[in-house]
Amino acid sequence: MKLFRYKTEEGNKTGVSINDAHYDVSSHISEYDRDFFDADGIAKLKEIVANGGLSKLDEPLDFDAPLYRPEKIICIGLNYSKHAAESGMEPPKEPVVFFKSPSSLTGPFDNIIIPKNSTKTDWEVELAVIIGKKANYVSEEEAMDYVAGYAVHNDVSEREFQLERGGQWVKGKSCDSFAPLGPYLVTKDEVADPHNLNLWLKLNGKKVQDGNTSDFIFNIPQVISHLSQFMSLMPGDVISTGTPEGVGLGFKPPVYLKPGDEVELGIEGLGTAKQKVVAHS
Amino acid sequence: MKLFRYKTEEGNKTGVSINDAHYDVSSHISEYDRDFFDADGIAKLKEIVANGGLSKLDEPLDFDAPLYRPEKIICIGLNYSKHAAESGMEPPKEPVVFFKSPSSLTGPFDNIIIPKNSTKTDWEVELAVIIGKKANYVSEEEAMDYVAGYAVHNDVSEREFQLERGGQWVKGKSCDSFAPLGPYLVTKDEVADPHNLNLWLKLNGKKVQDGNTSDFIFNIPQVISHLSQFMSLMPGDVISTGTPEGVGLGFKPPVYLKPGDEVELGIEGLGTAKQKVVAHS
Repeated sequence: MKLFRYKTEEGNKTGVSINDAHYDVSSHISEYDRDFFDADGIAKLKEIVANGGLSKLDEPLDFDAPLYRPEKIICIGLNYSKHAAESGMEPPKEPVVFFKSPSSLTGPFDNIIIPKNSTKTDWEVELAVIIGKKANYVSEEEAMDYVAGYAVHNDVSEREFQLERGGQWVKGKSCDSFAPLGPYLVTKDEVADPHNLNLWLKLNGKKVQDGNTSDFIFNIPQVISHLSQFMSLMPGDVISTGTPEGVGLGFKPPVYLKPGDEVELGIEGLGTAKQKVVAHS
Repeated sequence: MKLFRYKTEEGNKTGVSINDAHYDVSSHISEYDRDFFDADGIAKLKEIVANGGLSKLDEPLDFDAPLYRPEKIICIGLNYSKHAAESGMEPPKEPVVFFKSPSSLTGPFDNIIIPKNSTKTDWEVELAVIIGKKANYVSEEEAMDYVAGYAVHNDVSEREFQLERGGQWVKGKSCDSFAPLGPYLVTKDEVADPHNLNLWLKLNGKKVQDGNTSDFIFNIPQVISHLSQFMSLMPGDVISTGTPEGVGLGFKPPVYLKPGDEVELGIEGLGTAKQKVVAHS
């Protein structure tokens, strides 16, 4: 089952995709938010689908991010060994953790807005894991029980803001439009092995990232268990699991996004997203 | 005007304090959350108070944090020069910015829970600024227009998790109970000069922090303007402005919290808070 949110003149609505057809569920479920996941919303959605009678939506849809107001967007840094190398950093001994502001969340086909005074806006295709229920001091063995599903995430990053403006990375990760997510939240049962998914990103039609989640330094159970030692993971939280090699920072000389560029990215089984790059107005 | 939330058997309720008396406003306002501030809630609350007829509450009250689900808790690191020195760090050239997980938010008289495997849980009294309306690329001159009010915050910190576990500070700042806030959100009009407030913290009755916000390296307009260059500040967001000298890390040898300790802290005009320290169960 694939959950999505789409834009209409009356505001955003919820939907579900079954066998590539898209159905409206907004009369049953107002939002895919923390309270939805906390109330075992995915199980309820499955019942709604099983009961049938949903109205099929006309294509094309205008997708928004498949989540509303997640409490946290948590990211893992340097989680593919070749990307750590291209960033000039040692592979970490334990997960490197930082947050993006939830206000950076945006739709998978929305524009990436280059912030004012930015010269180093960069891309990062990542597998995002969405938490289904509150997790605290969870073991690696039980960690997957806390996963609701997966989504495509572009962890857009401003390298000067991230690395040259005070040491903590949050400044370079939190600008508006820096977290295009979706189009789908694909439920866990539809992904046979999240540790063997191809993921890729094209810049202006040319493939610049081409990795596989089998290259994770820390796998999903390790990441969830580790994070849950330091904070409560809440229903609907997003954990972005790091990016493979091929980001703009790693080019010699580095290549950064400029207005007019087009970024397309995807993960096997999770769909594809496309963003146009624009200057801040 | 002072806003507060208090615990009852029917759940949390909203209240307002006028001339040291406490009144219930829960029949008018369900929560002090992002949507409340976004809808100019403080102005509406003033009207409600002016209309009179509010019921006075019996004392003592069981206070919770004065905010519900803020999108962000943003902290400024090393914003008092003597504290930077005791932490062994250079005074920063621009604000050092990190996030706490909103799941760390707790009431001003709730227990501080020492996380599992923690040996270095520390205290930090801070002036928290609460944002009243969305701020983006705001100048220093107009920054104060975006402030709703102020609150007492204990930016509880685990120094090993913060400094020895991967470089980004978020791991040591986000544990459950690490952000006791309140008792009050004191509206801006009640604070004559936020840059001249005494703030202090006592450990087991002994004053260990005793500072004044006049010692800020970066003042409130500078912090708000700076942050708004890197992210949208949302209504209800908390900005914690850093701590003066006297944290446990700065003692020789360092002193950290242990079960049974009592922390009391306050800021001139904003009230006092008190937390008991307990071990994780």
